[in-house]
Amino acid sequence: MGFLNFKITSDEENARTAVLELKHGIINTPALMPVATKATVKSLSPDDLHELGAQLLICNTYHLMLQPTPDVIAKLGGLHRFMNWQKPLVTDSGGFQAFSLGLGKEHAVGKLFFPGENHQGGKQQGRSIAKINDKGIRFRSIYDNSNQYLTPEKSIKVQEKLGADMILVLDECTSPLSSKQYISESLKRTHTWAKVCLDVHKTDQAITGIIQGGHWEDLRKKSAKYITSLDFDSYAIGGSLGKSKQDMHKVIDWVIPYLPKDKPRHLLGIGVVEDIFESVERGVDLFDCVSPTRLARSGYAHIRPPLGTMKNKYRLKMASIRNATDDQPIDPNCSCKVCKKYSRAYIYHLLKTEELLGYSLMSYHNLHFMLALMKEIREAIEKNMFQTLKKEWMGRITK
Amino acid sequence: MGFLNFKITSDEENARTAVLELKHGIINTPALMPVATKATVKSLSPDDLHELGAQLLICNTYHLMLQPTPDVIAKLGGLHRFMNWQKPLVTDSGGFQAFSLGLGKEHAVGKLFFPGENHQGGKQQGRSIAKINDKGIRFRSIYDNSNQYLTPEKSIKVQEKLGADMILVLDECTSPLSSKQYISESLKRTHTWAKVCLDVHKTDQAITGIIQGGHWEDLRKKSAKYITSLDFDSYAIGGSLGKSKQDMHKVIDWVIPYLPKDKPRHLLGIGVVEDIFESVERGVDLFDCVSPTRLARSGYAHIRPPLGTMKNKYRLKMASIRNATDDQPIDPNCSCKVCKKYSRAYIYHLLKTEELLGYSLMSYHNLHFMLALMKEIREAIEKNMFQTLKKEWMGRITK
Repeated sequence: MGFLNFKITSDEENARTAVLELKHGIINTPALMPVATKATVKSLSPDDLHELGAQLLICNTYHLMLQPTPDVIAKLGGLHRFMNWQKPLVTDSGGFQAFSLGLGKEHAVGKLFFPGENHQGGKQQGRSIAKINDKGIRFRSIYDNSNQYLTPEKSIKVQEKLGADMILVLDECTSPLSSKQYISESLKRTHTWAKVCLDVHKTDQAITGIIQGGHWEDLRKKSAKYITSLDFDSYAIGGSLGKSKQDMHKVIDWVIPYLPKDKPRHLLGIGVVEDIFESVERGVDLFDCVSPTRLARSGYAHIRPPLGTMKNKYRLKMASIRNATDDQPIDPNCSCKVCKKYSRAYIYHLLKTEELLGYSLMSYHNLHFMLALMKEIREAIEKNMFQTLKKEWMGRITK
Repeated sequence: MGFLNFKITSDEENARTAVLELKHGIINTPALMPVATKATVKSLSPDDLHELGAQLLICNTYHLMLQPTPDVIAKLGGLHRFMNWQKPLVTDSGGFQAFSLGLGKEHAVGKLFFPGENHQGGKQQGRSIAKINDKGIRFRSIYDNSNQYLTPEKSIKVQEKLGADMILVLDECTSPLSSKQYISESLKRTHTWAKVCLDVHKTDQAITGIIQGGHWEDLRKKSAKYITSLDFDSYAIGGSLGKSKQDMHKVIDWVIPYLPKDKPRHLLGIGVVEDIFESVERGVDLFDCVSPTRLARSGYAHIRPPLGTMKNKYRLKMASIRNATDDQPIDPNCSCKVCKKYSRAYIYHLLKTEELLGYSLMSYHNLHFMLALMKEIREAIEKNMFQTLKKEWMGRITK
């Protein structure tokens, strides 16, 4: 058990707002944490993130373990000081990337993490040279192809050196293509590792247990029962979350009743608009997703209703020639500084000429879009207007 | 003649400080203008540049002519509005790049503009497929390989559409390897074009005449006499400036006596520390150079004395493994926000992982270094302490 306070401040059926306090400050939930994979949110500075009102970032243990290494970060005073971010931080366990990137081929990353896909559901099966057994995961570094070994003990030790406010246990994230038998065996390992992680954990970092079980009701419930029997500070639902949005909703519906009301709930790797609405509605508090910044670098800008719809996925292809002479901002309904200062035509020009400012402006706008959405969701729940907001964004409610 | 005011405010022998007023504001000289090649200073935002105190940027007519095109920029309200920069702007004529990049091979750029080299002295001779004759320059676009034709009339027309505060005439920039006979013939063309540019120029943009003549005293003096006989708002010394620093000093010494005291003097494409000291000492007011931002992207950070010296070229190789665990800022004597907030180790990590924030932080620091140096130079001249400052930076005075 580490340092974590969590106070629910309002609710609307299962949806709730809360104030989460971690060592470096507070987070108003429901919240989306921008992803600072390698100790930086791609294309943005900490100053940008402060301006955007980000309260929590998540960093990637796999990458930081290999470069610059936990010892270097510890020597330099820990992750907060290293990356000049004095607000709360989360680190993941490193397990997911160890397995999915175990291929040793850096270019495979793009395929495994396609924008908008659930990045916990990569198709690594049959391709990965990472080996998992009951002790841990053997894999090759994408940096230097060196042999690496990640165990639950090592994951916790590494995360302790990194020094985030909140850490995650090592688990095995199975594929949507895995057999039920495989998922069932894997679940035993995930449960054993969860206990090991909790036992070896000695710092005051908050620690999160992860519920697995694929898209099988009995396995998910079994996992929820077991993991919540361990005294974690918060609980996460890990993927694979099935093959469709409906599968994902079912998984959440199965698991949520087992989770203690007074602890935060994190849906790992999820974060596009419709998933957030559906999950907040079901009682999820925390999200992390690379999609806003990854879409930005691919030339897609988020747009709010009425321009943005379920059909266009709230996205505008800024890299399209149609914007070449368009004097409008990305989204006339957006209040961010990019939309106040720059035209679509200029951003199109920057993207076309591959100027770094283009990626920064796009990333800033997309994160503003997501963080503004989370704020609106919190305000709506406080006013008992969540369903109205959901309808405004998603059209007819299909619940 | 366009809108330009120039008031000398102090001097120390030939060195002088002045206030230059252009349509969009004032510039304290001697000044270095950051280069916004494609309507953006690479890796930085206009907000960064305001924070850095930049008062003047120079954009590249060659690139903007081809992408997004002058018509698009004019339709969007001109370059200032397009790039969200409401302070003064200069555009060059497009001639130098038309000739040096006429190869049609984008990757050749890096070779032609090697960091720290005089970028007006590329080795294009014998390799370029650009053709120059008395009417203009035929070349191929590096964007789509299309045939392009740049004449003095067209250069002015394009620059009028772009709408910078100050524009440059089309000239031919000869190579240090050109024969005297070739330079002499080329000079006739450059002089004819200067007159044409002045004659067709109709807006209130200030217009700058360019003195050529290679490293030949008689040709330089001839050019200085002729160009200053035309009523330009300011005068520039174009390269090639010879094969060595000494050649460059000689060229400036030959030309300066011909330039009217009450008009600004721009040394084109020059901007490393020692060149700035030597040129300011000889009476130059304006500089432009891609070196600070280009060095940044190559992993070199500028460092002030005592860390920075003539020998190390005031550069620290940040991309070196020696910085991997170094908790110091880039330069402990630097007052910029990057040096206040980030360690060498973090910047090394960002450069190693090719994170865009690394290029932004490095570019910010390097431009801060140069702009702070220019400010110190102005303050030194005001106090009649320029020689002292030069000695502090460059060691024993060899004048």
